Amino acid sequence: MGKIQIVRREQPKTKPDPEKLGFGQYFTDHMLVMDYSAETGWREPEIVPYGPISLDPSAMVLHYGQEVFEGMKAYTLEDGRIALFRPDMNMKRMNQSCERLSIPPFDPETVLEGIVELVSLDRDWIPDGDDTSLYIRPFIIATEPCLGVRAAKEYKLIVILSPVGSYYPEGIHPVSIYVEDQFVRAVRGGTGAAKTSGNYAAGIKAQETAKEQGFSQVLWLDGVEKKYIEEVGSMNVFFKIGGEVVTPALSGSILAGITRDSVITMLRSWGLTVTERKISVEELFEAARKGLLEEAFGTGTAAVISPIGTMKWEQEQITIAGGNTGEYAKKLYDTITGIQKGLLEDRFGWMKEIQE
Amino acid sequence: MGKIQIVRREQPKTKPDPEKLGFGQYFTDHMLVMDYSAETGWREPEIVPYGPISLDPSAMVLHYGQEVFEGMKAYTLEDGRIALFRPDMNMKRMNQSCERLSIPPFDPETVLEGIVELVSLDRDWIPDGDDTSLYIRPFIIATEPCLGVRAAKEYKLIVILSPVGSYYPEGIHPVSIYVEDQFVRAVRGGTGAAKTSGNYAAGIKAQETAKEQGFSQVLWLDGVEKKYIEEVGSMNVFFKIGGEVVTPALSGSILAGITRDSVITMLRSWGLTVTERKISVEELFEAARKGLLEEAFGTGTAAVISPIGTMKWEQEQITIAGGNTGEYAKKLYDTITGIQKGLLEDRFGWMKEIQE
Ligand SMILES: Cc1ncc(COP(=O)(O)O)c(C=O)c1O
Ligand SMILES: Cc1ncc(COP(=O)(O)O)c(C=O)c1O
Repeated sequence: MGKIQIVRREQPKTKPDPEKLGFGQYFTDHMLVMDYSAETGWREPEIVPYGPISLDPSAMVLHYGQEVFEGMKAYTLEDGRIALFRPDMNMKRMNQSCERLSIPPFDPETVLEGIVELVSLDRDWIPDGDDTSLYIRPFIIATEPCLGVRAAKEYKLIVILSPVGSYYPEGIHPVSIYVEDQFVRAVRGGTGAAKTSGNYAAGIKAQETAKEQGFSQVLWLDGVEKKYIEEVGSMNVFFKIGGEVVTPALSGSILAGITRDSVITMLRSWGLTVTERKISVEELFEAARKGLLEEAFGTGTAAVISPIGTMKWEQEQITIAGGNTGEYAKKLYDTITGIQKGLLEDRFGWMKEIQE
Repeated sequence: MGKIQIVRREQPKTKPDPEKLGFGQYFTDHMLVMDYSAETGWREPEIVPYGPISLDPSAMVLHYGQEVFEGMKAYTLEDGRIALFRPDMNMKRMNQSCERLSIPPFDPETVLEGIVELVSLDRDWIPDGDDTSLYIRPFIIATEPCLGVRAAKEYKLIVILSPVGSYYPEGIHPVSIYVEDQFVRAVRGGTGAAKTSGNYAAGIKAQETAKEQGFSQVLWLDGVEKKYIEEVGSMNVFFKIGGEVVTPALSGSILAGITRDSVITMLRSWGLTVTERKISVEELFEAARKGLLEEAFGTGTAAVISPIGTMKWEQEQITIAGGNTGEYAKKLYDTITGIQKGLLEDRFGWMKEIQE
């Protein structure tokens, strides 16, 4: 620690009301910045006061979307220590996203050290209420000022931090889902397996349509046959059918979620069978009709576990687990957030503690 | 004219060498800016000195890619007047892109008036060499500072101008094309029919792979069956097969090119049959094997007409029109650029002259 150059903010900002944090609305006092140019490669990261960045209006990211990002969290443990959840996985996935987007890879250890230093510097911003955390958003943008469709020669990696409130102010509760059969989020051969801005832009319209119809999220089908289940909103998705847990296999158009990986590991450690395979929406509804669909839930960094209470597909609407949070959804949520808050033993070595 | 508020640059920039313009590398003295917020709607456009814009690092465009853009050109006519090519079509298409991306629509006449005023102000920047022009890039970015995947509540519309050189410094000449069968640019239900950054990000990697193999562009197949031809690079594509001209129908994953529309109109006015339909790459190669594939060319604002000399698909490589520029490719190029430069009669009413 301490190798990174830090320019401190002179006057710390006023912190927001910890009861009204919401998600991604407030940002801390500092940010990490690391520049790339074709001549120098990635330079050393620096910590500077959080504030606007200056971009030429022809900066390539604003026209051709060459961008990748990540989302991870830091927690205040019960005993006051601070830890990150599986940050090495985020660094690895970010470099994989870079590969797809033709962005030069960075050294994951350098950036992770920078993130640790940044979180440590802004540690007063980590909220300590129930289910709160500090959301960490690393991202890379193509900054070269040129209107040409090709990989840029200049980039900026930035890490910003946002204190976030509980995703479920009244406790974990099930959501209603709408099976999207018109809009498509991603297709194999496209960018769906990368965490890049264009995938999210493609989903906004479907999300709005679902909301108008009273649903809180969209269930995405594959772009080829519009038959197989891919993800739910910006989460991976799991189903418990006849005692067995199934989740869509990483087909090339699905993000390899870190929560997904943690959930698979945890369920298997409990002795459950978890199968990664293709699941058609028809198979799912057929299981529901037969009373075999026991649970359904989304997984992701923001909500950790998001139980699905009802699901609508064409004219049919099903209720899952009586519209309540299923047994395993609850147990997974409690166990993973328990580990994240330092209340339960970290038996898989997922927490990276920040030494001060 | 003259209603728009203008803040002039104090010192005009030095203009680049007209022989070395390239594409999208130099920008003029001013730009048009128009802001949107949910409370006020789109405000009045303003012209300000060209320069960096300030964005919060959490500006939504940098994370979720909510962005649309356009590309059009202004020309110095032979007699010194200035005109734009079919700018109403670009305004209309930009609003259609907005619709897909959940960006609030703008008044096309207001923005077009702003563009006319901007081009008029920076008219000294319009190059007058053969095949040169002033490229106009309007774009809209989501500027709201918030990490949430949804439509933003704040946007910025910006128009920048770039003097561009001849696309073919040694005259129009055929390119070599590689049929991409791994990466996919767009799929029906996705954003392929909109002009939005994510589509271009998705194509960069394939473009690089093609270049490494010695090809200058990629021919995109449909995302569903990887069988039907969609576009070539960032252009629409036409084939002349056995005397008839065919071009892929607007399937929902193809951009409705304005040059495409102009080419269809022009060919029909010459008495040719032009059919918009599905064309499989197998059909195309079969036609080539039989000696029926007479011409192939891409169409777009940047190059106008880009003849295809050779095309490779899996293990097979075909040569089209003997590797030369075909008769109609040449005639279309000469006629459209002739109209654009005011050398030929504007029989379809495509040129919008700028009154001073
Ligand atoms: C599209 C998409 N799928 C799945 C996930 C879940 O990934 P993770 O568990 O790593 O947060 C995310 C990110 O949160 C996502 O954006
Ligand atoms: C993907 C794509 N297809 C086709 C075109 C051609 O459209 P236009 O003729 O309007 O320039 C463009 C833009 O130039 C494009 O970006």
